[in-house]
Order: sequence, then structure tokens, then C-alpha cells
Amino acid sequence: MSGAAAKKVTAGGRRAAAKPAATGKARKATPKVVRLTAADMAEKQREISVSEFFTKNRHLLGFDSPAKALLTTVKEAVDNALDACEEAGILPDLLLEIQEVSETRYRVAVQDNGPGIVKAQVPKIFGQLLYGSKFHRLRQSRGQQGIGISAAAMYGQLTTGRPITVVSKPGPKKPAHRFDIQIDTRRNTPVVVADHEVEWIPEHGTRLELEIEATYKKGRHSVDGYIEQTAIANPHASLTYVDPKGERSEYPRVAHELPKPPQEIKPHPHGVELGILLKMLHDTKAKNLRGFLTGEFSRVSPAAADEIAKTAMLPPTYAPHKAARDQAESLYKAIQATKLMAPPSNVLSPIGEELLLEGLRKQVDAKFFAATSRSPAVYRGNPFCVEAALAYGGEGMPGDELITMLRFANRVPLLYQQSACAVTKSVVQTNWKAYGLQQSRGALPTGPIVLMVHIASVWVPFTSESKESVASYPEIMKEIKLALQDVGRKLGIFIRRGIREADEEKKRSYIEKYIPHIGIALQEILKISDKERDKVCATLKTTLERSRT
Amino acid sequence: MSGAAAKKVTAGGRRAAAKPAATGKARKATPKVVRLTAADMAEKQREISVSEFFTKNRHLLGFDSPAKALLTTVKEAVDNALDACEEAGILPDLLLEIQEVSETRYRVAVQDNGPGIVKAQVPKIFGQLLYGSKFHRLRQSRGQQGIGISAAAMYGQLTTGRPITVVSKPGPKKPAHRFDIQIDTRRNTPVVVADHEVEWIPEHGTRLELEIEATYKKGRHSVDGYIEQTAIANPHASLTYVDPKGERSEYPRVAHELPKPPQEIKPHPHGVELGILLKMLHDTKAKNLRGFLTGEFSRVSPAAADEIAKTAMLPPTYAPHKAARDQAESLYKAIQATKLMAPPSNVLSPIGEELLLEGLRKQVDAKFFAATSRSPAVYRGNPFCVEAALAYGGEGMPGDELITMLRFANRVPLLYQQSACAVTKSVVQTNWKAYGLQQSRGALPTGPIVLMVHIASVWVPFTSESKESVASYPEIMKEIKLALQDVGRKLGIFIRRGIREADEEKKRSYIEKYIPHIGIALQEILKISDKERDKVCATLKTTLERSRT
Repeated sequence: MSGAAAKKVTAGGRRAAAKPAATGKARKATPKVVRLTAADMAEKQREISVSEFFTKNRHLLGFDSPAKALLTTVKEAVDNALDACEEAGILPDLLLEIQEVSETRYRVAVQDNGPGIVKAQVPKIFGQLLYGSKFHRLRQSRGQQGIGISAAAMYGQLTTGRPITVVSKPGPKKPAHRFDIQIDTRRNTPVVVADHEVEWIPEHGTRLELEIEATYKKGRHSVDGYIEQTAIANPHASLTYVDPKGERSEYPRVAHELPKPPQEIKPHPHGVELGILLKMLHDTKAKNLRGFLTGEFSRVSPAAADEIAKTAMLPPTYAPHKAARDQAESLYKAIQATKLMAPPSNVLSPIGEELLLEGLRKQVDAKFFAATSRSPAVYRGNPFCVEAALAYGGEGMPGDELITMLRFANRVPLLYQQSACAVTKSVVQTNWKAYGLQQSRGALPTGPIVLMVHIASVWVPFTSESKESVASYPEIMKEIKLALQDVGRKLGIFIRRGIREADEEKKRSYIEKYIPHIGIALQEILKISDKERDKVCATLKTTLERSRT
Repeated sequence: MSGAAAKKVTAGGRRAAAKPAATGKARKATPKVVRLTAADMAEKQREISVSEFFTKNRHLLGFDSPAKALLTTVKEAVDNALDACEEAGILPDLLLEIQEVSETRYRVAVQDNGPGIVKAQVPKIFGQLLYGSKFHRLRQSRGQQGIGISAAAMYGQLTTGRPITVVSKPGPKKPAHRFDIQIDTRRNTPVVVADHEVEWIPEHGTRLELEIEATYKKGRHSVDGYIEQTAIANPHASLTYVDPKGERSEYPRVAHELPKPPQEIKPHPHGVELGILLKMLHDTKAKNLRGFLTGEFSRVSPAAADEIAKTAMLPPTYAPHKAARDQAESLYKAIQATKLMAPPSNVLSPIGEELLLEGLRKQVDAKFFAATSRSPAVYRGNPFCVEAALAYGGEGMPGDELITMLRFANRVPLLYQQSACAVTKSVVQTNWKAYGLQQSRGALPTGPIVLMVHIASVWVPFTSESKESVASYPEIMKEIKLALQDVGRKLGIFIRRGIREADEEKKRSYIEKYIPHIGIALQEILKISDKERDKVCATLKTTLERSRT
């Protein structure tokens, strides 16, 4: 409305002459409808379990269509498998099998060589939403919330009535255990349907099987596309994929060492809110304020702690659990006013320029490649880092269509909700015309390009639980744009060189076309022989070529 | 990747010669990192409360920035107030006051003349996430989930440490009660900080006050924009808004009757999934299958119930709670195979063409208005209905910018996440060139237009809990496009008429310019008087004008 012709609204009251609506007669407010009282309404109030909530809102978790449900299920299982292997320091060997049960029903199995899962934990991990080890920590990993895999199990149960099957073996000398698990959605608790020892050949690892309502499609938003892109971003993983037709694809590892393991960090004081600070003050085991500040946060030295305490007008020996709202607020303001070192940035595990290029080269045929891996930055106290790579001008890449984008967060491909993503917004807001590409206002640029952007962080802010697009924090968008400008500049140089060379080529062929005519004209004017004429032409050609290069 | 130059991937295994990564040395998989066992990992697993989840993920609820937090808080409170008034059959009178506490802190108060809230329910409604009356029913309302207002309270507590204050009075002879409520986020339960009777003048109603970290901005995404648009879509509500500068804006009601009250419906059998069916079979009080099918669903007659039972090869007297997965699946398939009436569509409460036009005219100056209100349709068993209205060509509307869009769901303005919304996608995918507008590929059309789209449904599928954009169900997008085409055609006629008239005008002025010259020429040839010449000119002009109209 603003920007368009909104009438002055503040005066709305006096302007609109309270003309009754065309459809309703003007009359006193005594409607015919049954009048509910507060007591009537109270009867309907009741608790909603998180499982009920997500059953009804399953599109929030990425289960909005049968095709997407298949992808989401695979993604949650593969992400967990890769996380488990890496945390245990094991180079991941993954097997994904998808079997068609009927046209609308598939059985998905994901098997890893990870550390397995302790028996007592299996039911809750797979049969309870919001349960896990990754939520209460700050460390780069694919899983973050403790929802994903139990949501897939719940979706399977919802659409096929079948429980999830989990086989886990923690070590060579330990027995393998098989569980069949369902979810009591009203209570959000696991129900173990079957539980017994089984024979299993691998030394250690976990195998999941789920039956879900799904459809299998090829294409970029498909399981095939996800596996391809996962291989690009995880060059240290070996993936085997057996698709519903029984075709087997192998993605062997390119890097034979695990990436540098990401580190867990404590929260940075500048990223902590008043309410959280208040809660931390009450929950801490520290005996005094100095111990609290240095122990519960990153980047607070004893000197910095004393400075914060002084600014807050509290003694460094103040007992944290005594703090009421007012003390907490003084402390909060003092923290904001104190200069502190930025959060540690070496805790992240980016892919790196060389592996980015290698991964992209392996999957895309192109004439030109560029990559950049930026230094870490910080949003809301969380370190993050942006990487970008692009491939330009290959056979089969259409030159007159919008560029192809590959988005990744903590090495996980993001296949849906492209337009809502901070990455897409940053690409749209970047001036690609400066790098020799065409671009309509408010749109992606056009050209034969595959553009890859990776965001790694101890906590990636997604716009929804389905983790399909990154929220548009200004700090994150700034970093993405800088990364894009970096690869964009490299591309611009390549494209301009190409244009210059094409221009040269055109001029040269033009000149070459006329040299014989010049030769004939000279021959007539100077009365020279055919041989001399040809010699002059050759000399002319050489001279012109030399002058142009 | 597909579409671009993806190399054949199935052969990936044989292709890539397992060349070690440039950064890592090729060696056996014996990494240096500490190897965690399943037992190590088990220690870190723990439950996450839904409050903890949404505290960390508050951007999912619309609290991602201080400006948006203010809007979301106002929106949740106003939505609840309007819902409560309408359910109680009361024409809503709302008061919104925003007071600046400091540059980054505001106090928001929303007061309604609704039915009030029963004392025992107040703490849970405002101090517990996922609690409410609207989740377990199918009925058009603004609130759906039982998250919104308690999330606002939680955000206030998180950023300012202050509890939410609720004053409620259920009737003229009943006392008003004031509560101060906090949330125990670890347990997701309310903590009542204060609770006592207070004097309050209004006969009945509820008043909320929250102190939150926020910034106040003007513009379309602001509280001001939200209130303006709320007035457009709720012509039966009277709104008073006192902004942080103390300026008072009144939006009096245009319609003096409540909209037709929406009806609660039972689920339609075709929209129910196997898992839900299984649960319903176990939970029902019906003694037999016929009673279950006719009683728990809409649109199942006894004859249809018998047909379903027969197809499922179960007797109509079968006891529902006996059904195991296999019986439920037979029943599920039988339901899908049985032709049933579409869900009842008269349960919705659309705005209507006339009030759409009236609302838009009140807020926007324009030359041309058009509106359409489509018949209800169905997605996943849920009835919904789409309405569209547009205003074209007003002073102050820029002609060379993208059109201004106003999106509404169940009469609530959606101000954020425009690009992720089914409405926007439908607008982008509509061919506006056919209606005389300019449009780049993959973009909104350009022109001096305010376009309004409203979706009403018993359950609006949002892409996130913050309810900012509608999920792209194909059935919904189809209806939106049909509505757009309808107003588009009307606009096209108006624009083409304008173009034709401009052409006529140009031709006419051209002819008029030359008529005097023709007159002079005729005078010379025919030797006529000046008077006769002027008469001829006048006749010529009239004739030409007549022939053109």
C-alpha cells in the first residue's frame, strides 16, 4: 500500500461515512448467531502434543507431497548416518536402497558403518519428536533439532501403518539388535513393537528401514539429485545407491581423510538474550559471577568478566543464582557494552576451495570453474562461513535459461524452497550484469552456469523445520554476496576475454576475406605478376595478424 | 544439475579414478581424531521441550528481527481478539496501543470486547505452547495451532524478562481478573507470577499487555500496514490504533453485521490418511463400522458406509476397535475407491465481491477496480475458497515498478515471505501480458496495480508456524490462478479500451489539425466564401468524429 496510492489512513475515522455494507443491512449489533460464552470456549481448550502438531503440519517437516516425502526420508537418514560416522571418526561408507512396494509405496533402507546406537537410546531417537544430542550444543553438524528421523518414522506410520525398523551393532564383539518402533502421537512417546538380537555381518553400524507412501521421480529435486549433490559436498564419503529399478550407482570417495572435525563451542556473550541469561544464571553451577562468565561463555577472560561485573555494578563474587530480573538486565547491558573477542572461528569445517572445485568438476562438464571459501563471520554470536563455486559454459547447459543453483548447509543439499532462501535472495540482489551475464530485475541471472553456495555454521538458521532454505540474516546475506562477487569477478574476466577474443576473430576473418580483393586491386595498379600478388597478400595477412595479437 | 551439463552419474564409480583430494594425503582410514563410541554419544541424548525448541528457533514463529517481532506480537493478539469476538457473536471493537519504553523496547496492549476467558484457562492459553481450542477442529479461523500468543509471551520474557499481563472479564456481573504469567521453557508450563481481582470498566472482554524487544517502523511490512490491511479484510470490525508517537487512528466498521459464521466440519474420508484412520478406529465410541463411518466423517451416508464396508470385505457391524493394520488398510483402500460427495462448501466465510471492492476503494485511490469471489474447492479433504481484487492506475502508483500485492489468509494479512507463497507463485505463473501488462520471465508483472488475494479455509496450510505464506498445493494454486485470470480479463478490457481511446484521440487530433488546410484548398478550388468554407470544415469534422465513434 505504501508506495502505491494509499489514502491517508490516520483520518480514516472521519473520512469513511460508515456507509453500511452493500450486502448487509445497517442495524444494531444484535446478531442472530449463537453467542458463545467464555465457559463454552473453555471446554474446547486442550493440550496438543508435538507429534499431533507435526502430524497435522507435516508439510513443515518436508512431507508435503509423496515425491518430497521420499526425498526427506532419505535425507534425514543419510544426514544422521554421515553425522554419526564423522563424530566417531569413521570415514563414512553408506548404502541407500529404495525398493518399490507398489506405485505409491516404497521401502527405504539406509545403512552406515558408524558406531551404532546404545540399545536403551534407540526407541527415543526414532520414536519421539524433539529428542537428540545435537540441540543443546553449538557444533557444526547436519542434524540440529532432534526431529528429522523420528518425523520420517511418524510419516511412515501415518501413511502405511508400518513401524520403523532399526538394526544397530555397536562393535565387532557386541550383538546386533533389531527394533520395530512406533510413535504414540498423542503422548509423543515411543512404542517398541519388536525387540530382539539378530545376526548381522558388519563389524559396527546402523541400518534403518521404513515403508512410506511416496512416488519416485528423476530430476534435480529427486533422491538421485540429492545423492549426486551429497557426493559433491562430501568428497570423503563413499555412497552406494540402489534405485527402485535396481540400478546401482557408486560414488567413491575423492578425499581419503575426514574433514577437520568441527569443534563444539560455548555461546558467545553477545549472542545471548536477556531471558536466556536469566535462565543461565539460575541454572549454573558456578559459585560466583566471575566463574559464571568465564565458565559458561566463550571469549570471556577473567579480566573481561571483572570489567563486565564492574559495568553492571555487581561484585565479581556475586552469587549468580541470586540474580533477579533487574540484576540480569544490568549484566546484560554490561555484556553488550563490553568489547569482547569475536567467537572462535576455527571451529568450523568448510569444504575448501580445492575440494569444491574437484567436486563440481566431477559432476559438471564446463569450460570454466571458479571457487572461493571465505573467512568465518558471526551472526547472533554464531560463527559461520560461506563458500561458493561456479561452473560456466558446458555442452548441454542452456545459455538462455536462468542459472542452475545448488545450495548446501553444513554439507547437506537443499533442494526445495529455493525462492525463500537467503542464498537465492543474495544471488538475485547481486549485479551479474557487471560480470557479463543477463539479468532481469528481481530475477536470477541467465546463462550456462551451475552455481554452488555452501554455508557452514555451528547453528544454521533455517526458515522451517524441513531445513530447505536459510533464513535471511543480514550478516549471512552480506557474506554470501561477497562470495558471489568473488566468483563473479573471476567469471567476468573469463567472459570478457571470451568476448574480446570473439571480436578479434570476427575482425580477422573480415580482413582475411578482403585481402584477396586488395591483392587483385594492387595487381592491376602496380602491374605485378600473380606470384608477386600472392606474396603481397601473404605478407599483408601476417602483418595484420601480428598487429592484432 | 539435470537440465545443466550433469555428467552421467550412474557410471560415477568407474569414472572417478579415486584420485586423492588435493588437500589430503591418500592413506588408510585410520583418522587421528578421537573416536567416539555409541556409549559416548548416548550420554548426550536428551529431551527437548517444545518451548526450548521455539526459543532457539524463534524465527520460525516470526520473531526473527525486532521490527518483525513487534508486528508478530500485534498480529497474534489481534487475530485472537477477532476470533474470540466472532465466535461469541460480538461485533469486534478493538483497541491497539503501542508505547515506546526505550528505543529498542516497546509495550504492546491489545484490548477487545470479546467474551473474556475463564480464569482456570488463562495461564495455559498464555503460558504454554501448543495449547488451545482451534487445533483439533476443522473450522475457518485466524488462529489454528495454539502457539501464537504464548510464543509472543515467551519472546517478551526472553528479551525483556517481563511476564505477559492478562486482564479478563467474562461478563457485566462478573469480576475482572488480572494475571501475570511466565513460561517455564524447560517444561513448557505456565508460572503464574501474580493473580488478583481488579476493577475494570468494560462489560466484558480481554486486555493483554506485553513488553518486548522491538523496533517500530513505518511502511508496508509494519504494524501500520498490518492494521490498514486488517481493516480492508474485516469490514465488520472497528479498530482503534494508538501508535508509539501517540497518534490515534480510527478504522470504523463498514459492514454492520457479522460475516456469516463459519461452520465446524468433520473430516472428509478422502482426506484422511491410513495412520489417522487406524487411530480413529481405536479411539471411536461407535460400536460398529457403519456408525463409525457415518458418525466420524462428513459426507458418508449409511448407504455409502455399507458400500465402503462391502468393498473392504468387512461386515458393517464390525467393531472398529478390533481393526488391525490390515483391516484398516482394506478400509482405507475401500474409502479411496468409493465415490463420495465433496466436502460441504457452505461452511466457509469469504469476504465477498462487494465488500472486497468496498474495502479496497476505502484504502486505495485508483481509476479501475475489479473483484472476484470463487466457489469453494477442496485440497486434501479441506474446503477452501479464493477471492481476488485489484485496483489499477491511481495517482502516486508507479507505473514502472512491480505490482503491489496484498495477501490474506482467513482475513489475516500476510506481510512477510512473499516470494515463498502460493499466491506469489500463482501471480508469477499467470500470463499478465495477455491483459496488457509488462512482465519479465519468472517475475511479478509491472504496473500501477494493487492486487489483493484472499484464501479462506477450515485449515490453511502455511509454509511455517509464523503463518506468513501459503503452501503451494496444486489445487490451491489452480484456484488462485483462475481468480487472477478473472480479474485480469476485466483489467485487460479496461486497459485495451484505454489504449484504443488513446489511439482514437491521436488520430482525431491529427485530422483536426489538417481540416483547416483542406478547407483552404477547397475554397481555392471551388471559389467559395469564408463562411461556406467554415461550414464545410465543421461538417467534415462532425462526419469524421461520427465515423470514429
